[in-house]
Amino acid sequence: MSRLRIAACQLDTVVGDLDGNVARILGALEEAESAGADAAVFPELAVTGYPPEDLLLKPGFVADNLKALEAVAAKTRECAAVVGFVDAGRDLHNAAAVCVRGEVVGRYRKRLLPNYAVFDEQRYFTAGEGPPTLFEIAGVRVGVSICEDAWSPNGPIAEQAAGGAELVVNINASPYYAGRLAERERMLATRAADASCALVYVNQVGGQDELVFDGASLVLDEEGRVVTAGAQFAEQILVFDLEVRPVFRKRLLDPRGRYAGPALPVEVVSRASRAAGQPRRVPPRPAALDPVDEVYQALVLGTRDYVLKNDFTDAVVGLSGGVDSSLVVTVACDALGSDHVHGVAMPSRYSSEASLTDAGKLAANLGVELRTIPIEDAHRAALGMLAPSFAGLPEDLTEENLQSRIRGVLLMALSNKFGWIVLTTGNKSELATGYSTLYGDSAGGFAVIKDVPKTTVYRLCEHRNRVAGHDLIPTSVLEKAPSAELRPGQRDDQSLPPYELLDPVIEAYVVGDQTAAEMIEAGFDPELVRRVVRLVDRAEYKRRQNPPGVRVTPKAFGKDRRVPITSRYPG
Amino acid sequence: MSRLRIAACQLDTVVGDLDGNVARILGALEEAESAGADAAVFPELAVTGYPPEDLLLKPGFVADNLKALEAVAAKTRECAAVVGFVDAGRDLHNAAAVCVRGEVVGRYRKRLLPNYAVFDEQRYFTAGEGPPTLFEIAGVRVGVSICEDAWSPNGPIAEQAAGGAELVVNINASPYYAGRLAERERMLATRAADASCALVYVNQVGGQDELVFDGASLVLDEEGRVVTAGAQFAEQILVFDLEVRPVFRKRLLDPRGRYAGPALPVEVVSRASRAAGQPRRVPPRPAALDPVDEVYQALVLGTRDYVLKNDFTDAVVGLSGGVDSSLVVTVACDALGSDHVHGVAMPSRYSSEASLTDAGKLAANLGVELRTIPIEDAHRAALGMLAPSFAGLPEDLTEENLQSRIRGVLLMALSNKFGWIVLTTGNKSELATGYSTLYGDSAGGFAVIKDVPKTTVYRLCEHRNRVAGHDLIPTSVLEKAPSAELRPGQRDDQSLPPYELLDPVIEAYVVGDQTAAEMIEAGFDPELVRRVVRLVDRAEYKRRQNPPGVRVTPKAFGKDRRVPITSRYPG
Repeated sequence: MSRLRIAACQLDTVVGDLDGNVARILGALEEAESAGADAAVFPELAVTGYPPEDLLLKPGFVADNLKALEAVAAKTRECAAVVGFVDAGRDLHNAAAVCVRGEVVGRYRKRLLPNYAVFDEQRYFTAGEGPPTLFEIAGVRVGVSICEDAWSPNGPIAEQAAGGAELVVNINASPYYAGRLAERERMLATRAADASCALVYVNQVGGQDELVFDGASLVLDEEGRVVTAGAQFAEQILVFDLEVRPVFRKRLLDPRGRYAGPALPVEVVSRASRAAGQPRRVPPRPAALDPVDEVYQALVLGTRDYVLKNDFTDAVVGLSGGVDSSLVVTVACDALGSDHVHGVAMPSRYSSEASLTDAGKLAANLGVELRTIPIEDAHRAALGMLAPSFAGLPEDLTEENLQSRIRGVLLMALSNKFGWIVLTTGNKSELATGYSTLYGDSAGGFAVIKDVPKTTVYRLCEHRNRVAGHDLIPTSVLEKAPSAELRPGQRDDQSLPPYELLDPVIEAYVVGDQTAAEMIEAGFDPELVRRVVRLVDRAEYKRRQNPPGVRVTPKAFGKDRRVPITSRYPG
Repeated sequence: MSRLRIAACQLDTVVGDLDGNVARILGALEEAESAGADAAVFPELAVTGYPPEDLLLKPGFVADNLKALEAVAAKTRECAAVVGFVDAGRDLHNAAAVCVRGEVVGRYRKRLLPNYAVFDEQRYFTAGEGPPTLFEIAGVRVGVSICEDAWSPNGPIAEQAAGGAELVVNINASPYYAGRLAERERMLATRAADASCALVYVNQVGGQDELVFDGASLVLDEEGRVVTAGAQFAEQILVFDLEVRPVFRKRLLDPRGRYAGPALPVEVVSRASRAAGQPRRVPPRPAALDPVDEVYQALVLGTRDYVLKNDFTDAVVGLSGGVDSSLVVTVACDALGSDHVHGVAMPSRYSSEASLTDAGKLAANLGVELRTIPIEDAHRAALGMLAPSFAGLPEDLTEENLQSRIRGVLLMALSNKFGWIVLTTGNKSELATGYSTLYGDSAGGFAVIKDVPKTTVYRLCEHRNRVAGHDLIPTSVLEKAPSAELRPGQRDDQSLPPYELLDPVIEAYVVGDQTAAEMIEAGFDPELVRRVVRLVDRAEYKRRQNPPGVRVTPKAFGKDRRVPITSRYPG
């Protein structure tokens, strides 16, 4: 029975902030050292932040990252640190260093490089090769692997277990989407049980442009049972003791008593656990967030990190009295504090009294500053200026877009003058169908709910009201028919199918990559399918000019879905 | 002495337009057949257009592409067609089919999959493996390879030549940038000479979102000498006779008279040339465009194809009387015809008389409709609406951006009402440094000169005037100091370093991926370097919301340069 005390450090690193990341790592390492940990485990590419993208093409950046790793290694004492960094030989490698007593004593280079969805690792990295070294830490043989390495049944974890590893540490930068945690847990449990090998999975936390990382590190025993887990969406240094049973070693032996795979080389880091003889430390697993709360927390963290990491303190949101802007301003308050959020109502000649009242009520409930700037003067001026060009032509979408764009101009002026970031309020259903005005309601720095379908927008509002214990978002906002109020009596359902019908078609087309023919065959209404497919395809040019926003589904618009603008494929 | 008559078909395919591409291929095939060609060679992924990007993730799209290939094969007669398509087995492959007499008689799967710069082929495709088949066409053993395959000295071309190929056909979708043609020619000449093997390089032509393909197909003999070449930036079916000399075969034999590599399997397509006995047909190589004209033609073709392939007929450009908008409207006229281009002057209270005069002169020279919409009314209205918020605060960039954004609103209103695409006028120097207004001058559908540094903008204007034989773009436009005219007496050089100093720093930082420290060491002024690096990094969020534009340098902003928005790396 060997005991190992591990500190799983799920940090919120910042891309490119080498000095800052070193400080974050050293701070956590200090804590691990004080807790008597044998090893402190940090996320994938913790030194550079993840994903560094084309910063990796700068040799100077890679060199700076190596110096940063040295700075971390130099400060290590008895607690071994497993740290993600960019290794550079002839090629670049996504790698983990094992550091102890002031030195880097070993390295592991990631074998499986994801190059799908939001991942471009083959753009930068070369896969590691050859037999990996195991590290004997506190007398336990530890294999090190990185993220995608864990996803192959016959990959590095199986190889390391067969080669003598009693524990595998897997360091990650695994982005969140709804349902991802359960997928991960199922996969890791299978991997640990199949390999008869305990598994420590450490994930980074925090927002980075479109992505949000959810932490939720996991510790599993050799039968695939969860021993403990880290918090979701929060930084944490999770210190726990893991018992590696002697029986476990036997499972790896073939009938003649040898390890079933080729024995791997072993680097001795430490022979005995610093936690031996102490009471066993196993923090209880925190309860998993409910599915709607999980999405809400992802939006809050993604928004907070985008705003703060880009050196903004305050945000401004146009409040229409509708459900989308109500959700966005509420998320903003939870992310930044209501003192740092500024609401602007910009009624036009077509705005209803009720909308203004709802915006006012919401701002009051949240404690958010609200200013009102009617757009009539600019609206009238613009119409007058365009009158000679538009003489004799009927009103159409042009006049509707005009109002939305004047609002964009006003929000951007406030942003410029006061240094507030504009949060846009478009949801995924609108973004998918192009039901938004380019440079109008889509103008801004961060699109908080761009990956949230309209039907989920309602669920999130109801959830937030439940948490508040009262109608933080006024009931009237949730109950009225959605409208852009850009012409008299306008309602969304005059331009779009009802959202309950629309969202499943978007899901099948965008996330499911089905063709129109396949969706029709699957039972969707043919008319509806053709309409939605046409709308989605034609709106690609608009989406390309949208700001980033938090990915919360398995396929978001953005780098997750790289379709051509110029395309004649009918869908 | 074996003769082979080949039709190199450099087509302008459209991504996703499977039916259209089949029709384009069959039209060219008909012409090749009439010319008595033994083989017609089409570009890489000619069936789907290149690059199809995430359309490839739709199994339905891949299936449709296979049907389209069958439709092409079914129409083949005696002339063999080498056609790029997506092959689907367990995985997807970027492939070429050899079709003749109604059937697909062979396939080749691309070995080297580029995954750098603008390329993401490892996101979609698996590399081909195993010994490739050679095709005996008109008695000549022909190897088939695809694009990147040609760039490795020890790659498929060397293997095929060593294995018995007397001619290698390389099909391409190779995007243009300035200087690319010379690089390609050098590489192909080396490849042909090293392999002692004639080489037919066929490239697609036309614009696709950010990319423009330049055609310029090349035919080289077994000593690497250019036999003939296709036009740059134009569709062409280049029919030529290639003589494969008997002496050439001997070079491949080792001292014992055997082929130097393992002999490759051969599929017999046709034994005798249809061109035997006819006078030899070798069209002369067209003169290469001069370097500035080449960039100009790339802009024209890229703009024309983006506009027309996205089903627009007309474009609108804001004319400031400055050099950027003057170049853009001139390119637009060359791309679409001046009847399809609409100019709008939008003077503000700060616009000079000279600017208006210049815009008017230019429009008259080009024969372009010009309307004038002063922005004063909306400008005054917006300032009034914002006055309560801005009370007591000094004027700053906010008020400048306001004017630019009002112009954006007007251009988009004209676009919405008349269905014209807005062409934006920002150049690469501005885009790099963020010297533009988001949703203002950057608002539009296509950014014609976004990859053209300001110093090159001048050269292109001068070039176009030389071609015209008179001052098509008025000399006054080229001679005055650049200014955005957003405040009294404003000049670019109050906010930016002079362009002659700025552009080389941008080149080193953006294209060269150097760090600030490296640039300073290389001799650039430290103050200048730090200023430019800060500007470039801080403007990433703006660039992300810019429309696509034509790539004409080795590294354009867009999918060619994927840097994080959130980054604290100091450069």
